[in-house]
Amino acid sequence: MKCKRCKKTAAVALPSHNTAFCPECYLIFFARQIERAIHVQKMFTHDDTLLVAISGGKDSLAITWQLAKLGYNVTGLHLDLGIGESSVKARQTTEGFCSAYNIPLQIVEFAEQGLAIPEVKQKIRRPICSVCGQLKRHFFNKIAIEGGFTTLVTGHNLDDEVARLFSNTLAWDQAYLQSQGPVLPAEQGFAKKVKPLYTVSEFETANLCFLAGIHYGYHPCPFSRGASFTSYKALFNQLEELQPGRKRCFYQKFLEQGRPHFQNSREINRELHPCPLCGFPTSTPEAPPCGVCRIRELMRS
Amino acid sequence: MKCKRCKKTAAVALPSHNTAFCPECYLIFFARQIERAIHVQKMFTHDDTLLVAISGGKDSLAITWQLAKLGYNVTGLHLDLGIGESSVKARQTTEGFCSAYNIPLQIVEFAEQGLAIPEVKQKIRRPICSVCGQLKRHFFNKIAIEGGFTTLVTGHNLDDEVARLFSNTLAWDQAYLQSQGPVLPAEQGFAKKVKPLYTVSEFETANLCFLAGIHYGYHPCPFSRGASFTSYKALFNQLEELQPGRKRCFYQKFLEQGRPHFQNSREINRELHPCPLCGFPTSTPEAPPCGVCRIRELMRS
Repeated sequence: MKCKRCKKTAAVALPSHNTAFCPECYLIFFARQIERAIHVQKMFTHDDTLLVAISGGKDSLAITWQLAKLGYNVTGLHLDLGIGESSVKARQTTEGFCSAYNIPLQIVEFAEQGLAIPEVKQKIRRPICSVCGQLKRHFFNKIAIEGGFTTLVTGHNLDDEVARLFSNTLAWDQAYLQSQGPVLPAEQGFAKKVKPLYTVSEFETANLCFLAGIHYGYHPCPFSRGASFTSYKALFNQLEELQPGRKRCFYQKFLEQGRPHFQNSREINRELHPCPLCGFPTSTPEAPPCGVCRIRELMRS
Repeated sequence: MKCKRCKKTAAVALPSHNTAFCPECYLIFFARQIERAIHVQKMFTHDDTLLVAISGGKDSLAITWQLAKLGYNVTGLHLDLGIGESSVKARQTTEGFCSAYNIPLQIVEFAEQGLAIPEVKQKIRRPICSVCGQLKRHFFNKIAIEGGFTTLVTGHNLDDEVARLFSNTLAWDQAYLQSQGPVLPAEQGFAKKVKPLYTVSEFETANLCFLAGIHYGYHPCPFSRGASFTSYKALFNQLEELQPGRKRCFYQKFLEQGRPHFQNSREINRELHPCPLCGFPTSTPEAPPCGVCRIRELMRS
């Protein structure tokens, strides 16, 4: 197989794009995918200050590396969840990467906040993955807003987005179908959030890391069980084998032809007001503390 | 495992309903599923005259048997497609069934109409499955309208409907998402069409046939290749294993929470007018003959 651009021997086949590339041209192809996503979705410009959530996995390292390489103003944010060896390694990988590529890095230690996930798990009855996600979103937003960053970047890729879309579609959940997408605009108290990898598959980011020599970690969380998203990803991988390009098409057509129908309908009632304790917006009715402050209170009790 | 109704030993487990039944109670359960679908969707009453499309497969025999048993006014319609041994056997099964249960049966012979499918396949360039589907829908409707039947019944089951819904959702196709459902109301020149098996899985109709002693045929069409619907059914069967009841929930929530969003949007432009040759409605622009009459013309040429 030959590289579609330069006709040298190809190293990466991409059936979903009906193409193949040599290592050098793959890097060009990858960069263009990202640039197109940023441009088409009006995510940000070179004047913006970007805070990138870095877990230490392939997706967050790939997008941070690519944005820095494209000359964007990038700062990393790593949340040290305090989950034993898994968090220690994730932090080491992230620190090593940011130091190697001269990327400023902020770290929030959940343990310092009294929110180490294993301790939260012992005190809070809700499923820990949901609580952990809530805490992570809170700190992503808090650091972005308090640091004056214009945009929060996450490493969600096409497979993540397709699994989430399928989950929302299986339930025909209007609130989620109305708001799912690669850009969440800034709202009172919420930073703008963008996902520049939304057209790029897991396979493609893993390839980018391999070909660009980025050492990423694989630090599975000991608390995460086989979530339904994992099985949705597996189903769509089967479908992609039969119909290459199907994942991208499903998501793209949702943005163009599906989502508008849910957005045109009556607004989902989501009134936000500042939490009386932390000041960040909450939709909790009747203005008690927000969910995160209630977790903090429970941890202190 | 015990029968949920009578506590005898169960013969059929239905994880999607979190239940199990003995043979006698399964027949009661099946009948109630159908009665509820007819009632909830306002499909028809005992005053209606029903034309049921009977292919000779398990679904069409199961629904015909059940509707006759529930005292509805049922007439069968079988289309003999003229596809060699497959069609001969399907017709024999259908004739045997209708004769055994005293159900009036009308037969349309495609060969007599100059439309035997193998000959159509030789003359028409389009994929034969699509042409055959078009011809079948035409004759179902024609016989229903000309015979003065109030309602056309087809044997589409939950798996058929879920595969179609998934296909329409993958493409976010507004026109199809707007109109998919267990009831298509009568329109100028079109009979009302209903699918009373829409809550019932393939497994459940096969079981009904087995337990009620209905001899159904399996007459695979030699022209049908592995269609995408088959792989969608396989994907949803995997999902159903992981999340029993998921198929029914996906379809039901679509009807309640998904479809209304597509119906509230601007109308898809579909102007119908009578075909100048056969008089049945067509959406072909500028009033040339309808698709079926054009096939007839091509076959005569």
